[in-house]
Amino acid sequence: MSKKKKLKKSESTGVVTIGVVDTMFARYDMGAAARKELADCPGYGTKFRVIAETVPGFKDLAVAAKNMIERDGASIVVALGMPGSAPIDKQCAHEASQGIMQAQLMTSTPILEVFVHEDESDDPEILASVFENRSRDHARNAYWMLFDPDQLARRAGQGVRQGFANAGPLDTN
Amino acid sequence: MSKKKKLKKSESTGVVTIGVVDTMFARYDMGAAARKELADCPGYGTKFRVIAETVPGFKDLAVAAKNMIERDGASIVVALGMPGSAPIDKQCAHEASQGIMQAQLMTSTPILEVFVHEDESDDPEILASVFENRSRDHARNAYWMLFDPDQLARRAGQGVRQGFANAGPLDTN
Amino acid sequence: MSKKKKLKKSESTGVVTIGVVDTMFARYDMGAAARKELADCPGYGTKFRVIAETVPGFKDLAVAAKNMIERDGASIVVALGMPGSAPIDKQCAHEASQGIMQAQLMTSTPILEVFVHEDESDDPEILASVFENRSRDHARNAYWMLFDPDQLARRAGQGVRQGFANAGPLDTN
Amino acid sequence: MSKKKKLKKSESTGVVTIGVVDTMFARYDMGAAARKELADCPGYGTKFRVIAETVPGFKDLAVAAKNMIERDGASIVVALGMPGSAPIDKQCAHEASQGIMQAQLMTSTPILEVFVHEDESDDPEILASVFENRSRDHARNAYWMLFDPDQLARRAGQGVRQGFANAGPLDTN
Amino acid sequence: MSKKKKLKKSESTGVVTIGVVDTMFARYDMGAAARKELADCPGYGTKFRVIAETVPGFKDLAVAAKNMIERDGASIVVALGMPGSAPIDKQCAHEASQGIMQAQLMTSTPILEVFVHEDESDDPEILASVFENRSRDHARNAYWMLFDPDQLARRAGQGVRQGFANAGPLDTN
Repeated sequence: MSKKKKLKKSESTGVVTIGVVDTMFARYDMGAAARKELADCPGYGTKFRVIAETVPGFKDLAVAAKNMIERDGASIVVALGMPGSAPIDKQCAHEASQGIMQAQLMTSTPILEVFVHEDESDDPEILASVFENRSRDHARNAYWMLFDPDQLARRAGQGVRQGFANAGPLDTN
Repeated sequence: MSKKKKLKKSESTGVVTIGVVDTMFARYDMGAAARKELADCPGYGTKFRVIAETVPGFKDLAVAAKNMIERDGASIVVALGMPGSAPIDKQCAHEASQGIMQAQLMTSTPILEVFVHEDESDDPEILASVFENRSRDHARNAYWMLFDPDQLARRAGQGVRQGFANAGPLDTN
Repeated sequence: MSKKKKLKKSESTGVVTIGVVDTMFARYDMGAAARKELADCPGYGTKFRVIAETVPGFKDLAVAAKNMIERDGASIVVALGMPGSAPIDKQCAHEASQGIMQAQLMTSTPILEVFVHEDESDDPEILASVFENRSRDHARNAYWMLFDPDQLARRAGQGVRQGFANAGPLDTN
Repeated sequence: MSKKKKLKKSESTGVVTIGVVDTMFARYDMGAAARKELADCPGYGTKFRVIAETVPGFKDLAVAAKNMIERDGASIVVALGMPGSAPIDKQCAHEASQGIMQAQLMTSTPILEVFVHEDESDDPEILASVFENRSRDHARNAYWMLFDPDQLARRAGQGVRQGFANAGPLDTN
Repeated sequence: MSKKKKLKKSESTGVVTIGVVDTMFARYDMGAAARKELADCPGYGTKFRVIAETVPGFKDLAVAAKNMIERDGASIVVALGMPGSAPIDKQCAHEASQGIMQAQLMTSTPILEVFVHEDESDDPEILASVFENRSRDHARNAYWMLFDPDQLARRAGQGVRQGFANAGPLDTN
């Protein structure tokens, strides 16, 4: 029952654009992880291209993502950031998220928010794997949303997670 | 005193569109429950059709619902998701809800938010019934809002709930 | 120093429209109370008419009120709902209120939010009187805002309340 | 380095408009205090005029202020209200403030929010002086923003307060 | 993979505009610090000019920044303020931040929010250095975003901070 997206293709090249925006503030190169995943997707460089930008902090992601869509023609954006562990950081993360939500609605275009909270793990090794995996998983989601939405439809209600293991569907046995 | 809605009918088919959008993140196939309920409503497939989409998480519902309205001509959307039980999940649910609210106002079209919080019950059997019933009840509400608003008007102030039993009107005896 | 409002009058009838929107979720028929108060106001049915709609819950009030203004020509709307007593209900009430605020600003038209919190009193009799009185008081306010704004101006800073007794001005004696 | 504002002057009179909006809910006539301060400013009645309106509560301030700007041509608005001391009052104040913020952005026009929280002092005499002084101080700020912005520029970073004594600049001696 | 920004240059002069807006409320002259940093950047006065404005408090920053962009042609704005230490100050800071976020999205132009919380240090000397350094660092970021975005790209994920020492990238050794 799903509908085909209308992809914005560059008139001159017929190539779709995916945006990746990350921050100086984060303590892991999330943008690089997302770009690597996209480089592994079928059609990289031919069917779609990737544009990237780095902003100071996560509150700067929303307008940068909006500009990638409106100015640079991106059909979807992956926006990556790391909220710190202090209470004020939670409030700032809330504001950053609200901005990303508004940017999506103003452009009618998905922006996948990829936030790894600095306090998700005390173990730097584990935290690094969460950074790497969540950034990659959402980059893959962005690809699926544009080119293969049935990958999402068949996982509906399956407790799919990004960064840690999947929760799986509710166990009612 | 109520007014007739102006339903957007497809020019070619005269059929009204109802959208259903759900997530991979949820641990129950809420979209399937909503679609089943709509399939039981009078006029399914003739008077109205159902379109569906699955997105990664509940923060992605708002823009997907907006696109169903603006791009696909939906007259109402049922948006289904499951907030997790951690404090950060509550904040994210808040952001997702704000987005759904904004999408409604930007499109002047109702989007029924159907959220089941993972911690509404510790018992997976009970939680599953809440998932199933709330998804179905709101799908029915969507149908009523489009085709039979008096069903809502006659229940005004009656403490109607979705998922659990109705609270009923205030008992002042 | 106040300015006359520009009332939107129906071209064919010269009658102003007041909207009343309420919910199935509330445990008291707040819409009926508001409509009764309006029926007691001078010019009911001649100077102004009342339109009404019932939606599932308070998060559905904002878009319904917006449509009453934009689609049905309402010059003001009274939006009535009952937040429950759980913490999540407070958050939902916040989202509902933000939506009502946005709907006002997008339409440049007042929407009077009438919320009675289920936990304002443990005594059902008292709570029922709060439901009845607050709904009526705000319906009267809506009437005054359209037709008799000096009633509001002369009560400026007087600690006027709806539902319970007035607080009165600060006592500095 | 500051820029001159473009003041909206009435075409027929060449007079700038300042709006003052207050509430019935507040327990002090804040609007009167603001209007008195403006009446003491140079050019009152010749260079600028004051329009006023009273609304039920502080959640009604935003749309009223927006209408003063868009409908009545106000170049700035002073919006005065009193949040109560209960937790729900804080949440409502937050919604009222967000609305005032949005109204400013939608109109590209400053609206000075003047809120006195009922619990800023237990002493009614002190609280009354806060009401009076904060209302007057912000009315003066509104005047300065329109006609004498250098008054603000020379106080940059000086810890200026309204209602209570100034905090002054950081003491690093 | 980054894209060149389209800088708005004054038609008559070819000079780009950077806005700096600060407050009377703050207890340190943050605007002066930002302006000094910009005066040290290559091309000051030739490639770009700086405009400045002071508003009463941080809730007034958003609309002032928006006007600098829309009315005065600024290509980026640095918005500086100091939230106080009381709980209500945190809420107000949240509203101010949301406004700055909205202003960015409405103008598709970055506004760098530079907030120093009064309680970041008990030591006035340290706090003063945070005020000075954070204001300067974000002014430099604004310059980089306009004229040298690779400075940001090469610091992606490096735990860069403003005001205090950098956190650095995650240590996984």
